Amino acid sequence: MDPDDDHFRDECGVFGIHGHPEAANLAYLGLHALQHRGQESAGIATLDEAARITAHRAMGLVHDVFPPEVLSRLGGRTAIGHVRYSTAGESHLRNAQPFVVEHGGVAYACAHNGNFTNTVPLRRRLDAAGALFQTTTDTELLLHLIAHAPPGPPLDRVMAALRQVEGAFSMLLLAGDSLVAARDPYGFRPLCLGLLSGAYVVASEPTAFDLIAAEYVRDVEPGELLVLDRDGLQSLRPFAAAPRRFCVFEHVYFARPDSTLGGRSVYAARQALGRALAETAPVDADVVIPVPDSGVPAAIGYAEASGVPFQMGLIRSHYVGRTFIEPQQTIRHFGVKLKLNPVREALAGRRVVCVDDSIVRGTTSRKIVKMLRDAGAREVHLRISSPPTRWPCFYGIDTPDRAELIAANHSVDEIARYVTADSLAFLPVEALREAVGSPSGEGFCEACFTGVYPVRIPARPQ
Amino acid sequence: MDPDDDHFRDECGVFGIHGHPEAANLAYLGLHALQHRGQESAGIATLDEAARITAHRAMGLVHDVFPPEVLSRLGGRTAIGHVRYSTAGESHLRNAQPFVVEHGGVAYACAHNGNFTNTVPLRRRLDAAGALFQTTTDTELLLHLIAHAPPGPPLDRVMAALRQVEGAFSMLLLAGDSLVAARDPYGFRPLCLGLLSGAYVVASEPTAFDLIAAEYVRDVEPGELLVLDRDGLQSLRPFAAAPRRFCVFEHVYFARPDSTLGGRSVYAARQALGRALAETAPVDADVVIPVPDSGVPAAIGYAEASGVPFQMGLIRSHYVGRTFIEPQQTIRHFGVKLKLNPVREALAGRRVVCVDDSIVRGTTSRKIVKMLRDAGAREVHLRISSPPTRWPCFYGIDTPDRAELIAANHSVDEIARYVTADSLAFLPVEALREAVGSPSGEGFCEACFTGVYPVRIPARPQ
Amino acid sequence: MDPDDDHFRDECGVFGIHGHPEAANLAYLGLHALQHRGQESAGIATLDEAARITAHRAMGLVHDVFPPEVLSRLGGRTAIGHVRYSTAGESHLRNAQPFVVEHGGVAYACAHNGNFTNTVPLRRRLDAAGALFQTTTDTELLLHLIAHAPPGPPLDRVMAALRQVEGAFSMLLLAGDSLVAARDPYGFRPLCLGLLSGAYVVASEPTAFDLIAAEYVRDVEPGELLVLDRDGLQSLRPFAAAPRRFCVFEHVYFARPDSTLGGRSVYAARQALGRALAETAPVDADVVIPVPDSGVPAAIGYAEASGVPFQMGLIRSHYVGRTFIEPQQTIRHFGVKLKLNPVREALAGRRVVCVDDSIVRGTTSRKIVKMLRDAGAREVHLRISSPPTRWPCFYGIDTPDRAELIAANHSVDEIARYVTADSLAFLPVEALREAVGSPSGEGFCEACFTGVYPVRIPARPQ
Amino acid sequence: MDPDDDHFRDECGVFGIHGHPEAANLAYLGLHALQHRGQESAGIATLDEAARITAHRAMGLVHDVFPPEVLSRLGGRTAIGHVRYSTAGESHLRNAQPFVVEHGGVAYACAHNGNFTNTVPLRRRLDAAGALFQTTTDTELLLHLIAHAPPGPPLDRVMAALRQVEGAFSMLLLAGDSLVAARDPYGFRPLCLGLLSGAYVVASEPTAFDLIAAEYVRDVEPGELLVLDRDGLQSLRPFAAAPRRFCVFEHVYFARPDSTLGGRSVYAARQALGRALAETAPVDADVVIPVPDSGVPAAIGYAEASGVPFQMGLIRSHYVGRTFIEPQQTIRHFGVKLKLNPVREALAGRRVVCVDDSIVRGTTSRKIVKMLRDAGAREVHLRISSPPTRWPCFYGIDTPDRAELIAANHSVDEIARYVTADSLAFLPVEALREAVGSPSGEGFCEACFTGVYPVRIPARPQ
Repeated sequence: MDPDDDHFRDECGVFGIHGHPEAANLAYLGLHALQHRGQESAGIATLDEAARITAHRAMGLVHDVFPPEVLSRLGGRTAIGHVRYSTAGESHLRNAQPFVVEHGGVAYACAHNGNFTNTVPLRRRLDAAGALFQTTTDTELLLHLIAHAPPGPPLDRVMAALRQVEGAFSMLLLAGDSLVAARDPYGFRPLCLGLLSGAYVVASEPTAFDLIAAEYVRDVEPGELLVLDRDGLQSLRPFAAAPRRFCVFEHVYFARPDSTLGGRSVYAARQALGRALAETAPVDADVVIPVPDSGVPAAIGYAEASGVPFQMGLIRSHYVGRTFIEPQQTIRHFGVKLKLNPVREALAGRRVVCVDDSIVRGTTSRKIVKMLRDAGAREVHLRISSPPTRWPCFYGIDTPDRAELIAANHSVDEIARYVTADSLAFLPVEALREAVGSPSGEGFCEACFTGVYPVRIPARPQ
Repeated sequence: MDPDDDHFRDECGVFGIHGHPEAANLAYLGLHALQHRGQESAGIATLDEAARITAHRAMGLVHDVFPPEVLSRLGGRTAIGHVRYSTAGESHLRNAQPFVVEHGGVAYACAHNGNFTNTVPLRRRLDAAGALFQTTTDTELLLHLIAHAPPGPPLDRVMAALRQVEGAFSMLLLAGDSLVAARDPYGFRPLCLGLLSGAYVVASEPTAFDLIAAEYVRDVEPGELLVLDRDGLQSLRPFAAAPRRFCVFEHVYFARPDSTLGGRSVYAARQALGRALAETAPVDADVVIPVPDSGVPAAIGYAEASGVPFQMGLIRSHYVGRTFIEPQQTIRHFGVKLKLNPVREALAGRRVVCVDDSIVRGTTSRKIVKMLRDAGAREVHLRISSPPTRWPCFYGIDTPDRAELIAANHSVDEIARYVTADSLAFLPVEALREAVGSPSGEGFCEACFTGVYPVRIPARPQ
Repeated sequence: MDPDDDHFRDECGVFGIHGHPEAANLAYLGLHALQHRGQESAGIATLDEAARITAHRAMGLVHDVFPPEVLSRLGGRTAIGHVRYSTAGESHLRNAQPFVVEHGGVAYACAHNGNFTNTVPLRRRLDAAGALFQTTTDTELLLHLIAHAPPGPPLDRVMAALRQVEGAFSMLLLAGDSLVAARDPYGFRPLCLGLLSGAYVVASEPTAFDLIAAEYVRDVEPGELLVLDRDGLQSLRPFAAAPRRFCVFEHVYFARPDSTLGGRSVYAARQALGRALAETAPVDADVVIPVPDSGVPAAIGYAEASGVPFQMGLIRSHYVGRTFIEPQQTIRHFGVKLKLNPVREALAGRRVVCVDDSIVRGTTSRKIVKMLRDAGAREVHLRISSPPTRWPCFYGIDTPDRAELIAANHSVDEIARYVTADSLAFLPVEALREAVGSPSGEGFCEACFTGVYPVRIPARPQ
Repeated sequence: MDPDDDHFRDECGVFGIHGHPEAANLAYLGLHALQHRGQESAGIATLDEAARITAHRAMGLVHDVFPPEVLSRLGGRTAIGHVRYSTAGESHLRNAQPFVVEHGGVAYACAHNGNFTNTVPLRRRLDAAGALFQTTTDTELLLHLIAHAPPGPPLDRVMAALRQVEGAFSMLLLAGDSLVAARDPYGFRPLCLGLLSGAYVVASEPTAFDLIAAEYVRDVEPGELLVLDRDGLQSLRPFAAAPRRFCVFEHVYFARPDSTLGGRSVYAARQALGRALAETAPVDADVVIPVPDSGVPAAIGYAEASGVPFQMGLIRSHYVGRTFIEPQQTIRHFGVKLKLNPVREALAGRRVVCVDDSIVRGTTSRKIVKMLRDAGAREVHLRISSPPTRWPCFYGIDTPDRAELIAANHSVDEIARYVTADSLAFLPVEALREAVGSPSGEGFCEACFTGVYPVRIPARPQ
């Protein structure tokens, strides 16, 4: 019902800071800036001088999870934090991160964005070795791997563990007296390095640096493992090399438009997607409108390239959160309306190009088209600033089964009829590649569009 | 700290429905659509077949105040609802509306948007007659006037009471078995009539009708009093005639852009304000950006008229509500940043026109200009889509004292220096009048800009 | 289901303090000691140097209603407080006390224990004079009477108002800069005066003085009105004289056993009731047990006088409050068991005298008798330390309708059969009189036992 | 400050039921009856037909932890539950039980009352084997032992694990499709078996059976392990035999007086303790009073044996829970008074024998003696119905360090002076043995009195 519900969802955001007297406060602010990457639970773990870890995690938004009195209990100059989204069935405090354990007299905490693809054999092996599982999270699995690693200092154990996992990870760990930041060799998920008054910070997106007035230094490289401790910053390359495969959908929808990822401004990329869309799918129209908020930059790009005027033809209300429960059966159909309302003046009697970033099931698009027509739009042309999403993701994104992906099972014409648009166009994959600056597609994971999976995916059932 | 804090604030929104089996649910949805008019408290009172009133009111957003179990207790086919904002000092459940009382065996409920200007003498007189005041609200005062009116049926008492008050009111009452909707003769605040499957609805803005799929019928006229009861709709004119004086600031900032007020689309008005601003205060620039969300339509208008490209150069986070309490002194200055973040790509090296709707104290504008420069803007030209706000409002808007209104005490140049903009321009009053379709200014209250108060204001101290 | 539910209930407790720097804290503690007189809502109003009143009231126990941050906001050196019980239907925050209003520039607060008997004509008259009622409480009625009193200083108005009401009142008011404590001429409900480091305190029971280490001075006399202000303590007698009619049921059940009321220790009175019961209704038995906690002193008295050993044959769990909601239909019958459990060792094979203070509907007694038999009691002889309660109270006690009072409609034999006791005996009225030290019955209201009402009761329907 | 605070505390209570359609509801009621054994956290885990475990645990009282909607989610016909107390420092949801894990495709849940004494070497070994610890609880340790046990069916693993632990355990487990109840060979902590309509129940005390109308069958024997599954009840003896060493302090203070433990009624035992105390430490007095509630049966016994009349000279308020936080420094000393108040009538001018069950630090006793004197007691003779507690417990009881145990470091005379009693007497160990029916002391653990520890205690620091 929520327009946001008919989207892929990023599963997590991570933030870390080493060597700052206000570590927990800054983690709180950093997570706040990453809230769009996960609204289900939030957590922060801090590391103090005595290598002790204190943590707090709870269901809810960052703002609600960390009232001042909780934040003030999180002492120490090093912190990692996590925001999480997950599907309803698995929604549970138990799965909230950072996960904290003790082994061999050493405290570990782990916050993870990504998804391992070889959990089944790993878990089977650990189980046989006596490992007790309290959750189904990759994070706990990694901690068991650390505990079962060959004897050695914490950092060696962490590397030994990470070398056993396949798939996507942008991960922060507290281990002994160090903060470790690791990114898988393909670099599926983003991870960036910044600097604030001499303290290093790491975050899923550099927008988190803006909020705390930290300076963006560079991306953590695919396959790189950073160790932040009293000796400063150390960069290791403990993993077998692999081709860079950054998730292109971060540019399409997940990341905040004010972020720069892999050297490319997300806002600029989305505008370019919109411009490319205008070129590949032009239409004779009176007005270009976005589905707010995510469709705005692409719609601006479309308007620029097409010369059709841009208008905010749909107004989005921001007073209702994701947790809205509608009061009664009889008003259940107000779902989308609670979030979006048309501006009749901008639509009535006009031929409307409506720009959105993706179509997952098509249910929300259908409602939006109807809403625009009810507001007097003479024609509604739906333009999607990405190719059809036909394949599920196994690298850290929550996507429905193929059976539910409308584009996996229907032609563009069929989708157009279902959403009742006068015309519908997606962006060709080639145009997407151009817009993100990689004409060959090299460097990006496009599996959700192409079904080409860079890393072997688990056999079903998982 | 909140960018919304440096704005005038509308004090209330009202919604009513008569003769619908889901009266409370529809009031809930209607208030949701009016949430921007008051986020402090919300309330609904319903009237059942036996002329009994049931009510619930609490501090908080509509969504939080009315969980399903509360809503389901509000029976009856007639309902009025209220959302409220007020200054911090008066913030108290006691003042939440609708106010419910009993007198002479008749139950009354009242929900009010506006402000009476002759409360001091009225209250003095009622006090002498033995009236007990539990609040300082106009609503309670009106109910006392009803109780002290000459003997007669409830409707006669209501009219007798309303004839004694001066100032602004768009008011809904439950009285006996009727829903009464009254608008003062000047029509300061908006009030609209709609129809949903044979049931009449009234609301501060027609956007509330959109959400429940009701049809807009017409505005309640200034000086009109509607009675909705089992005999249907009756229109009375119980007040002395007065010239229409609709609050022009509803068009500038208060109302939702998807509303139409006084026959004028708010979105269209704001775009026209932006276009007029481009004409009266042009500047050689590379990009036009709005202060989101309220500055968007004017910025689009400015871009259209000036030919300078429109960009969303500031991204607004919607995860933090008004109640955000910052955790520590040391990070207090992050206030605006928590809500707004610049898009470096759209700003760096550019000459930026930043469009906002008004400046109250100037503190937020100053922070925004700094944020834009920090993001690389070469020049920042602030354009305000309304004249300088120099006078407080006494007709239902929360405005600071004159001493705090920066434009009341400083020249435009001084303000420009304070906010550190390269240039600053407000819209001339004449251009505002044109944009709202009244070249002479007739029909509007412009007191906050001009100091010309249509109705005598109370002597200080009130 | 709760054994406490089958009792009459005192409707309120009041506490006041004048001229102490920790007025609110002491009121908090005082109300805590009076919590047994009302567990539904609690409130405190404080009066500061500038004659301003600050108040907080909420549903719940004293401990929950006043967290430290709330208490610390209640400034001023004078305070009144209130705990309340009421029947479910009227249970509402709106009715919580102290009630605070403003009239003629003077703030008033009122906390009331008692019940007026002439509210119908008073309310009719006030209504005709334009008074607006927001509640059905006597407290609000009194405040309206104050507002409609002849012009004059607050104290004169208070006295004029109180002179118009009939029935029972032990009342505390803040009026202007004074604390007023008034007790009706019959003295139905208790009210005591104490002293703490030079500050006067007033409370429903002197047990409240113990907790704060205040010294008991004397009872407030029936018909007395105390004024506590900067001139100290002033005693007035503004009411027509009447015979003392103190509620005898305070001795039977309401008051705490550690209180002394009307010069008589409640504990001693209850022991005397038990002794008298042993004399008037002896039985050949092996053990005397109380229904805890209220039946303990009488059972001790019964054991003393009869020579039958005293045992705690029923254990009471204190972990469940009054608000316990049972989880499912199927375990609904565990109600009494959740509070009481038999000690088999003390009961098995024995002839048991079970002493309780009163029987209202008989439902709980029936369950207790069954519980005792299930635990092996050979015989169960129920002894009630008061006469049969046959008449409802109109003076501040919550009693069921006559139809529900088992003793109003059934003989003692019939009741014995209903509760399945081997024998049942109540205390004769004469013995009750002896035990409370008034052989003639003079000085006490015994209406619930005798139907002789000292003050005219309202005609039905009220 | 709380009189309950100056007591040893039982650390846990457990309840289990197998094969009943209302398993969770009955566990809820059973835990309610065991609430006195732990008020810090509560939890229930249920096992359904598919051998899946569902659990809920939270900080707080049973009543608050399990609102109806939570309880209704706990499906299945088998359940175990736990109530827990722990010292403040370790108070954390993480440590709440039952603990639930998965291993080898089998779900396990564990609820434990007791304390292992060999955790240090066990934990060291498990750690070396890669076990990850999330808590410091014995329960998690046991689950790791199960996971590291030789391959085999769940029950074999459970037994292998339990055979490795030393110390005290009365433990319930869900393992595969069975409920396992195990009691260590010494039988330190109680565990009882009951039957309810064909379903077996196990509980720390039989009082839990009373509440749900289950029948007491017998104690689980020391060293016995019961398996409840679809084949019914199986009794195993997997542990090396050991002499019975039941905690004598259960009779002195921990257990509810309405329980029967080891064939001995707790109420009767306490009465016998009181009688023995009267014989070993008589005093010429006017009245015997208990410190309620725990001192009541012993005081009754003392009164019986001495002929001195029993009175409830101290009244206990039950409106304040353990969580009471006093509002201000200045009223901090009201702690005990909030719970206890003297009955002046029963004390004034009298020579008082005050019976309590134990003295830990002496701070509360000192306050009580002062309170009695302030109420007019002419003499105060403190009689303690157990020997001096001189040694800490390592078998499941929370006791202070020796340094804080007043009797470990002071003579009886010194203690008497500290608590300002006219005389003080403890019960000789021999008399305690007689009272609990074991003249030789055989069968009981008396370590807290004698320092003779039946099982080797951990070297310090643990």
